[in-house]
Amino acid sequence: MFCWLSRLCGELSTPTRRTTQLIWSSAARSMVLSSQRIPELSSFVARTNTCGELRSSHLGQEVTLCGWIQFRRQNIFLVLRDFHGLVQVVIPQDESAASVKKILCEAPMESVVQVSGTVISRPPGQKNPKMPTGEIEIKVKTAKLLNSCKKLPFEIKDFMKKTETLRLQYRYLDLRSAQMQYNLRLRSQMVMKMREYLCNLHGFVDVETPTLFKRTPGGAKEFVIPSREPGKFYSLPQSPQQFKQLLMVGGLDRYFQVARCYRDEGSRPDRQPEFTQIDIEMSFVDQTGVQSLIEGLLQYSWPSDKDPLVVPFPSMPFAEALASYGTDKPDTRFGMKIVDISDMFRNTEVGFLQDALSKPQGTVKAICIRKGAKYLKRKDIESIRKFAADHFNEEVLPIFLKTNENWNSPVAKFIMEEQGLGLVKLLETQEEDVVLLTAGEHKKACSLMGKLRLECADLLEARGVVLRDPALFSFLWVVDFPLFLPKEENPQELESAHHPFTAPHPSDIHLLYTEPHKVRSQHYDLVLNGNEIGGGSIRIHNSELQHYVLDTVLKEDVKLLSHLLQALDYGAPPHGGIALG
Amino acid sequence: MFCWLSRLCGELSTPTRRTTQLIWSSAARSMVLSSQRIPELSSFVARTNTCGELRSSHLGQEVTLCGWIQFRRQNIFLVLRDFHGLVQVVIPQDESAASVKKILCEAPMESVVQVSGTVISRPPGQKNPKMPTGEIEIKVKTAKLLNSCKKLPFEIKDFMKKTETLRLQYRYLDLRSAQMQYNLRLRSQMVMKMREYLCNLHGFVDVETPTLFKRTPGGAKEFVIPSREPGKFYSLPQSPQQFKQLLMVGGLDRYFQVARCYRDEGSRPDRQPEFTQIDIEMSFVDQTGVQSLIEGLLQYSWPSDKDPLVVPFPSMPFAEALASYGTDKPDTRFGMKIVDISDMFRNTEVGFLQDALSKPQGTVKAICIRKGAKYLKRKDIESIRKFAADHFNEEVLPIFLKTNENWNSPVAKFIMEEQGLGLVKLLETQEEDVVLLTAGEHKKACSLMGKLRLECADLLEARGVVLRDPALFSFLWVVDFPLFLPKEENPQELESAHHPFTAPHPSDIHLLYTEPHKVRSQHYDLVLNGNEIGGGSIRIHNSELQHYVLDTVLKEDVKLLSHLLQALDYGAPPHGGIALG
Repeated sequence: MFCWLSRLCGELSTPTRRTTQLIWSSAARSMVLSSQRIPELSSFVARTNTCGELRSSHLGQEVTLCGWIQFRRQNIFLVLRDFHGLVQVVIPQDESAASVKKILCEAPMESVVQVSGTVISRPPGQKNPKMPTGEIEIKVKTAKLLNSCKKLPFEIKDFMKKTETLRLQYRYLDLRSAQMQYNLRLRSQMVMKMREYLCNLHGFVDVETPTLFKRTPGGAKEFVIPSREPGKFYSLPQSPQQFKQLLMVGGLDRYFQVARCYRDEGSRPDRQPEFTQIDIEMSFVDQTGVQSLIEGLLQYSWPSDKDPLVVPFPSMPFAEALASYGTDKPDTRFGMKIVDISDMFRNTEVGFLQDALSKPQGTVKAICIRKGAKYLKRKDIESIRKFAADHFNEEVLPIFLKTNENWNSPVAKFIMEEQGLGLVKLLETQEEDVVLLTAGEHKKACSLMGKLRLECADLLEARGVVLRDPALFSFLWVVDFPLFLPKEENPQELESAHHPFTAPHPSDIHLLYTEPHKVRSQHYDLVLNGNEIGGGSIRIHNSELQHYVLDTVLKEDVKLLSHLLQALDYGAPPHGGIALG
Repeated sequence: MFCWLSRLCGELSTPTRRTTQLIWSSAARSMVLSSQRIPELSSFVARTNTCGELRSSHLGQEVTLCGWIQFRRQNIFLVLRDFHGLVQVVIPQDESAASVKKILCEAPMESVVQVSGTVISRPPGQKNPKMPTGEIEIKVKTAKLLNSCKKLPFEIKDFMKKTETLRLQYRYLDLRSAQMQYNLRLRSQMVMKMREYLCNLHGFVDVETPTLFKRTPGGAKEFVIPSREPGKFYSLPQSPQQFKQLLMVGGLDRYFQVARCYRDEGSRPDRQPEFTQIDIEMSFVDQTGVQSLIEGLLQYSWPSDKDPLVVPFPSMPFAEALASYGTDKPDTRFGMKIVDISDMFRNTEVGFLQDALSKPQGTVKAICIRKGAKYLKRKDIESIRKFAADHFNEEVLPIFLKTNENWNSPVAKFIMEEQGLGLVKLLETQEEDVVLLTAGEHKKACSLMGKLRLECADLLEARGVVLRDPALFSFLWVVDFPLFLPKEENPQELESAHHPFTAPHPSDIHLLYTEPHKVRSQHYDLVLNGNEIGGGSIRIHNSELQHYVLDTVLKEDVKLLSHLLQALDYGAPPHGGIALG
């Protein structure tokens, strides 16, 4: 449900993917993440213990376990699995226990059984140090087949590759894998810690807002639901934005909700029609306040078996993110920053650069790919150039710095020595590096370079270069966004860069009435490893200002938001918030 | 959102409804309900303290407060309010503070201001013991108008009666009342405590299940949502029933979710199209296990300023609930139980009793209304008889036991002395009591009597008799429901009393194949003060049994549930659960 949390869980669990045992042991460890007190995992049920928890300290105890048959060896040993881990069960061989033996030897793999017996020490030489329960085994007295299992469509083992379709069709079998169990539990525990931080530590109030509501103007396409009244429809909200602002007007002071949101925009791997966000709003807060809250929240809920997060997170103005990374969500785990080399090429003889620079908004941009000449193939460069042509209608010029410090490029002869030396200096180019160069309007050229930067990183990593440390979690605030953007279809008109309730930057408020396109906003995005994982803003709390923005700047029909404008008139406090997810 | 929680909050806060101060003080107390650690209520924001928290222990401290102007007296005092409570602010009168005075005296009521100053002691004789902050006041140094308030449609005071329409129109103003603030916070904290109990204490995993899903057969009418594919629709689930069962098959072991559910059945005061339930499912559990879990859950999350709950809750078979209370959700806060007096009237001369008893299912039922002759008026009795005739097509006979121990009834002369004495003995009838008597088929007669029992309780309470202690929370398990019921439209066919996944009672399983209508189920309902606040069951985990119930007993199209039947085939563990809300 949480895109970013799923990603996080995926990344967090990567190093443990090697063997089932290791994942089960990290699953066992994760059981105690969310509380000092270890939860009682066998309360209210037919077992005395979980399979995964048994250790030498349990020796001699009479236990009852419930679990799935994971593995059977020569009708002597059986490995029993539950959500907590694996344990070895010794199948009794003496005549008097024939019925127990029959049950345990005849039940198909993945059948569910209940066994009772004694925790005993494994014989010398048979201990398994890789298995958390590897010092002990269960000497069974009684056994019960709780449910039998038909022949499986695939094996419940993590290293078995299954097709996505098969996994989704038999989701309940896929869920039995250690990896899936770990992910679901990690997510539950992180959200629980976030709730503790918000509710118990900082007095936030968890309020559920309606999901069957009337349509709100602007934003993404909403799902509609026919109501019982013909011709009237409910709408599933894309976020509780207006509800939470009204709660602030209602004096609630600190609101949060793990909120289900809906967007009728088709499914994509990174976008689902329904998703969940941690939705937060506070009164009497400023940008720094919200940022500190979120830093504290993530720090508090961060899994304790990972390196603790360092706060505050770095902050970067939108303009810098665009200029240096070509995007509003820079992946700051690696460099390869975009450099503006326009000045260097003012008097170039290279045709397309000349063309670009002759226009008033024309710029020349470059990135330097370290050791590109070593790792990138000719066809890589070709596909990069094709991408630029197809998607941006732009030319990209590759320049190879050869060992003899000569340039190798389709236009090498047009590059003057002065320019070449300038490039080497500015980009700190070294032997075997490749420089990619493009020209055009600032934003477009940066966007293209930003895409190529990520593309090249993927290519290099596919060739074995480690650019982005998988254990690194690089959080970044992107701030000082423009409040308005020119509409794509009609650049003379403005639209909200985020949404119309975003407050202008205090230093730019005077520009609102003269040059609104220059106004920066109090919006902030939280970026992790190049993905936007949250965004929010300080909101407009003044009714007149909100009216001016909606009516005069955005030319919206203010009647559609009259309820909000009216609410701001009745003593709305200054407020702001954020949504993660 | 939670019907029962709203009711609970309503009842929990009734005794504090008297004055605003008292509610604010209980709001202040409730801040610390959910955690040993007192939350930091002023972190990250522009205030140093909340208005409500200041006490003599803060004397001399420099504070900054943000709040709404609740009240102003003679331009000297101002009462500032935030979510936490009220505090008195002294408006400076000296010339040098003219601008501060101007702000604080000119701002309309309910404007939002920020004030900074010193906590000082109120002069002798001016302390207000009814106000939690009544020992201190704030000597202001600076003030800032954060937002002005227009003239209000109503005053923000709890004792002001407002119409429901006006309250809903200006929901954000209604929310500023102490009562609403208290309710929202109480609900948030109770749910948080429940999460702590489930997640941290007992290892439950919070899993979010999809709400955009395909239609499931049976149950309530579902909302449908047009998808992007013409002719195809999503459906909003009425509960995550199937998802949670599949999670158990997936080995998740212990699931919970605070789940949004939808039913397209029109709004009623006690039923909304969307509502929330605490949804729970466990593997390897039996009925007693689920009941103990829920008792522990409610005990743990119960507000600490109320009498602690006594567990286990009493339990009552469905048959007894019907026979004694005429309903499956008995209000056990008071007696007035239904008594079967059929045997006593076998040879009666009263016409409609004779008629009823001549039929094979005929019964005679009675309830005794203590002091009914004193409190019930003739028109009450008439309206009771009319209700019975209109809604049940049944006669109700009132019998008054007069002081002289003679009977006064329209049919008194037909009641034999032996029957009269029998009634007195069986119903423990005393002077001034009224007995209501009806006849008919057992279930129908009980249902009618059950309704009249509640109706009479309302009538007596309207006349000042205390029957149901408002401070009493009477929890009750109702168990041993029938698994199937005859269909109303065709009593020869059976339908599920709850849902088709409910497991039969282990003692009755043999009857399933011979007399299915006699089979009791492993369903249980939790009833509080006559309202059903939860229900659940042990589920069928055997694929063949599930197939038999769906196909042979219920004549359902098994294809619609083939995914569930298939899942049960792959080692589904025994499991059960419950939903509260």
